[in-house]
Amino acid sequence: MLSPSANLTKKAFSRVALVGKYQVDGMQERLSELAKLVTGLGCQVFIESGTADHLGLTNYPTKGIDAFTNEIDLVVVLGGDGTMLGIARQLAGSNVPLVGINMGRLGYMTDIPIQSVQDILPKMIAGDYEADTRTLLDAIVLRNGKEINRALALNDVVVNRSGISGMVELAVRVNGSFMYNQRSDGLIVSTPTGSTAYALSVGGPILHPRVAGILLAPIAPHSLSNRPIVLPPDVTISIEVVEGKQTIVNFDMQSQTDLQVGDSIEVSQSDKFISLLHPRAHSDYQTLREKLHWNEYPSTF
Amino acid sequence: MLSPSANLTKKAFSRVALVGKYQVDGMQERLSELAKLVTGLGCQVFIESGTADHLGLTNYPTKGIDAFTNEIDLVVVLGGDGTMLGIARQLAGSNVPLVGINMGRLGYMTDIPIQSVQDILPKMIAGDYEADTRTLLDAIVLRNGKEINRALALNDVVVNRSGISGMVELAVRVNGSFMYNQRSDGLIVSTPTGSTAYALSVGGPILHPRVAGILLAPIAPHSLSNRPIVLPPDVTISIEVVEGKQTIVNFDMQSQTDLQVGDSIEVSQSDKFISLLHPRAHSDYQTLREKLHWNEYPSTF
Amino acid sequence: MLSPSANLTKKAFSRVALVGKYQVDGMQERLSELAKLVTGLGCQVFIESGTADHLGLTNYPTKGIDAFTNEIDLVVVLGGDGTMLGIARQLAGSNVPLVGINMGRLGYMTDIPIQSVQDILPKMIAGDYEADTRTLLDAIVLRNGKEINRALALNDVVVNRSGISGMVELAVRVNGSFMYNQRSDGLIVSTPTGSTAYALSVGGPILHPRVAGILLAPIAPHSLSNRPIVLPPDVTISIEVVEGKQTIVNFDMQSQTDLQVGDSIEVSQSDKFISLLHPRAHSDYQTLREKLHWNEYPSTF
Amino acid sequence: MLSPSANLTKKAFSRVALVGKYQVDGMQERLSELAKLVTGLGCQVFIESGTADHLGLTNYPTKGIDAFTNEIDLVVVLGGDGTMLGIARQLAGSNVPLVGINMGRLGYMTDIPIQSVQDILPKMIAGDYEADTRTLLDAIVLRNGKEINRALALNDVVVNRSGISGMVELAVRVNGSFMYNQRSDGLIVSTPTGSTAYALSVGGPILHPRVAGILLAPIAPHSLSNRPIVLPPDVTISIEVVEGKQTIVNFDMQSQTDLQVGDSIEVSQSDKFISLLHPRAHSDYQTLREKLHWNEYPSTF
Repeated sequence: MLSPSANLTKKAFSRVALVGKYQVDGMQERLSELAKLVTGLGCQVFIESGTADHLGLTNYPTKGIDAFTNEIDLVVVLGGDGTMLGIARQLAGSNVPLVGINMGRLGYMTDIPIQSVQDILPKMIAGDYEADTRTLLDAIVLRNGKEINRALALNDVVVNRSGISGMVELAVRVNGSFMYNQRSDGLIVSTPTGSTAYALSVGGPILHPRVAGILLAPIAPHSLSNRPIVLPPDVTISIEVVEGKQTIVNFDMQSQTDLQVGDSIEVSQSDKFISLLHPRAHSDYQTLREKLHWNEYPSTF
Repeated sequence: MLSPSANLTKKAFSRVALVGKYQVDGMQERLSELAKLVTGLGCQVFIESGTADHLGLTNYPTKGIDAFTNEIDLVVVLGGDGTMLGIARQLAGSNVPLVGINMGRLGYMTDIPIQSVQDILPKMIAGDYEADTRTLLDAIVLRNGKEINRALALNDVVVNRSGISGMVELAVRVNGSFMYNQRSDGLIVSTPTGSTAYALSVGGPILHPRVAGILLAPIAPHSLSNRPIVLPPDVTISIEVVEGKQTIVNFDMQSQTDLQVGDSIEVSQSDKFISLLHPRAHSDYQTLREKLHWNEYPSTF
Repeated sequence: MLSPSANLTKKAFSRVALVGKYQVDGMQERLSELAKLVTGLGCQVFIESGTADHLGLTNYPTKGIDAFTNEIDLVVVLGGDGTMLGIARQLAGSNVPLVGINMGRLGYMTDIPIQSVQDILPKMIAGDYEADTRTLLDAIVLRNGKEINRALALNDVVVNRSGISGMVELAVRVNGSFMYNQRSDGLIVSTPTGSTAYALSVGGPILHPRVAGILLAPIAPHSLSNRPIVLPPDVTISIEVVEGKQTIVNFDMQSQTDLQVGDSIEVSQSDKFISLLHPRAHSDYQTLREKLHWNEYPSTF
Repeated sequence: MLSPSANLTKKAFSRVALVGKYQVDGMQERLSELAKLVTGLGCQVFIESGTADHLGLTNYPTKGIDAFTNEIDLVVVLGGDGTMLGIARQLAGSNVPLVGINMGRLGYMTDIPIQSVQDILPKMIAGDYEADTRTLLDAIVLRNGKEINRALALNDVVVNRSGISGMVELAVRVNGSFMYNQRSDGLIVSTPTGSTAYALSVGGPILHPRVAGILLAPIAPHSLSNRPIVLPPDVTISIEVVEGKQTIVNFDMQSQTDLQVGDSIEVSQSDKFISLLHPRAHSDYQTLREKLHWNEYPSTF
């Protein structure tokens, strides 16, 4: 964040869990170095069970993500934003903060390069960091008025057509008030975190992580005047499938439910949240600038 | 608003001022009818001085906008959103609420059609309404570190090139943190109210009036990955003219300042606001749907 | 067309086939009236077999579309652009021209309202019309270098992901020259006719029907600088599926082929074409203006 | 070009003129080296008069651009696309081809890096090249039906508002047929060459240099369904200023005319053209890919 947010407690974290994207070459070595570093800072280190199993790491105690809530003070994730997303969703509401370390390619959430970890992580574990709270969406899928699925999303809830069914027609209501019938390839309901993910590809705006709001971004809308719209954080958005034989709703593109005509999805902001820690003087704008090439000008005139 | 906002005081308004877009044909008659209607409701009616002068209305006492603050309880505006915008800016911070009546063409702020005024206005004056608070931007123009102009904007603060100087290059900082150097035709800093005005024409998202945030929307940016961004309401945005011989900043397109290279504009949310009143069960989405033709599909497939 | 194109032969058409969208209420009556009108102009009238069967029309001889080529001089279609599209694809290369009559909702290709048919059709059958030649795309689907499908498209050839496979990655080459690897929801290859269909929904430009060119329009591209591109009409575009478990190619959204990683689609302009007839002084711009609401301005400023 | 275009004559060029962007550091030295290289290839070398004057180059004969037409066989330009644009406009219709050499930053037209000039230029002067023909626009400004200015444009003819006059309203006709009244910041009429310049910043498509067509791209149009449109190359586009106090038309952003309400600009494709030479196996797609970062994906999902 630009301005130092209210920091979490200023004391060092004692129990630190490490999670790695095990498919990445050299991850075993990187994690071992990281474990040694964190141990050297006086912390008790745990390796997340799945990571330990896949990499055959046996030097440190392991712990399943389910057990992090009361037994871990800080989670350090090595990988990309996709890895971070998966872990973060599972920790929603646990109050355990996360730090993201990238393996070379800068991420929006994994903003510390592995090369800098020796410099940066000791300071953060000593309490010198900035915290960033991310909201999640809570989505309930209703069929004949009954809940058939419920899921959280850190990025987005996406209703879209599958196959060549041509289009979907969705009736969208906000707090019960009719907004529109939209014919399109689908509709993205996104958090500020998700505004730099799929929603950005369909022309959505970027929402700063501290903005309180929910973004609706249509995918290939037939109505040319249809535009992304940012709604207040306290609304409930209802999306009803009016037409569309093969329609699907997915949550962070990690799980999905097949929909029938008449089904609806109710989306609101979850009361759970996630805490991301960044190095002090972290700049979201620098990340955006680098990832989006904002200082390069391909036009000629 | 969707959900009834906290209403202002539930008592009837006693002192009501009427303002009309005097250039519109038949305004004199319309205003006279309106004055009679409001008088009949037991209110004391004033005609805004400029309106009275231009239309030659002498049957009612007049009052200048400057004197509205403690002497008027409700302002009723007849005209379009442009008229409303001008009046609202002058009333910012006065706590006097406004009602907007359109002469046939639905407006975002002037959402009551003149045909319905006999039905709707009595209820509103009796206290049956929904209130909607609009934020303003406070912009300070600095030259050599000294303030050379300061203005409020209900829609937007726009920095853009004038003439064929080719482009402007603007250095944008948020709370002192460098965001980007942008080469473009200009940059729009917009309130949620302004998001359906100029910003919409350059591809900006719609911000619901209750969203707390400030929109930055670039005008014809050279960098193709440049996108509109929504910032939290508590930031200060600094825009410095790095290059651009004929650069101008304007405020709601109603006043302007010529800029020199090195000048900067500091924009933040004003501590003043404006209160708009709507009929109960008013729907912003209906207005958007009608104005934007959201239910019409020009594509064929 | 704006400027009268080289007309087809100026003589009256003798053998006229009528095709109707049989699902539309009142189609039987409309077609009967139309048949009477055309018979009265001295033409021999045939009802397309499928139309006659579905509507139970037995007063006129019938003929299958397959037999139109040498036995019919003019086809009159009653319905929407979708109906027109289906018929036109089947007549590609036959040199039999088409006239499109809409049932109330203006179409890009069905531009004569049913109400005006008594006025307009006699003139056109007398030779007073403007002709408009439409190109088609010829698409070959290759697996391991062998053709597994081949189809024509009047609107577009669309490669896109199905389900939540996340994205497709497509390698695009033009005349064998590498253009880009595109990660997206898919890619639309469109004729000028198709530029007002699906491609328009993803931000593509409108191509006037007389422009010689092929449009590539990405669907939700991850690279923010990816833009629609118009290529010359004589190129061959090769699209290879690099990644994407559930990828599909469809042709005018009327037929489709499931794709595997490694498959490629070669698209080029067909040597067949379609001839549309319009009333004299027909204006494509009027159709665009009406369908796209070009003269309405929802913004306020 | 993708496919080798019909080459110009296969013989070596005898008389070669060199033009340099004299403001660039080190230009004198670069030009001297280049002159030595070309002389060594058996050509007669001339330095363009303005370049020679500004740089104080006296070792070679000079020649003004006006005299190139019959006295020069090839022009080599050192600089960026802006320099190239200026020279090319002056050579329109002369049949003298141009080669563009950039000083480090790849250009669409100046596609040979200065580092490669020793390798590439000898081959091209020996006749091993690909030629690329660029069209120009011919614009006539009319007041009360009389021509008050006429200019050529290689990129674009741009009508736009200056200052804060709010907007312009333009009536656009194509071959005399009314297209629309457009309220906007302005309108860009662009060649395929210009499609990667200003038009790209307002959301226009890329037109391959071999596409025969003229692009209309609106700047911040009030009507949200307004889209860029590609017209056939043989049309005449008339743009009339209906409203707009401070309206300007410019030609390649290099010259301009102030407009009054009622003035109109007639734009059509010029019968003159420009010939650009490229190294053999030149790929326009590689240039686009590099300049537009088409293979980078800032989104995370």
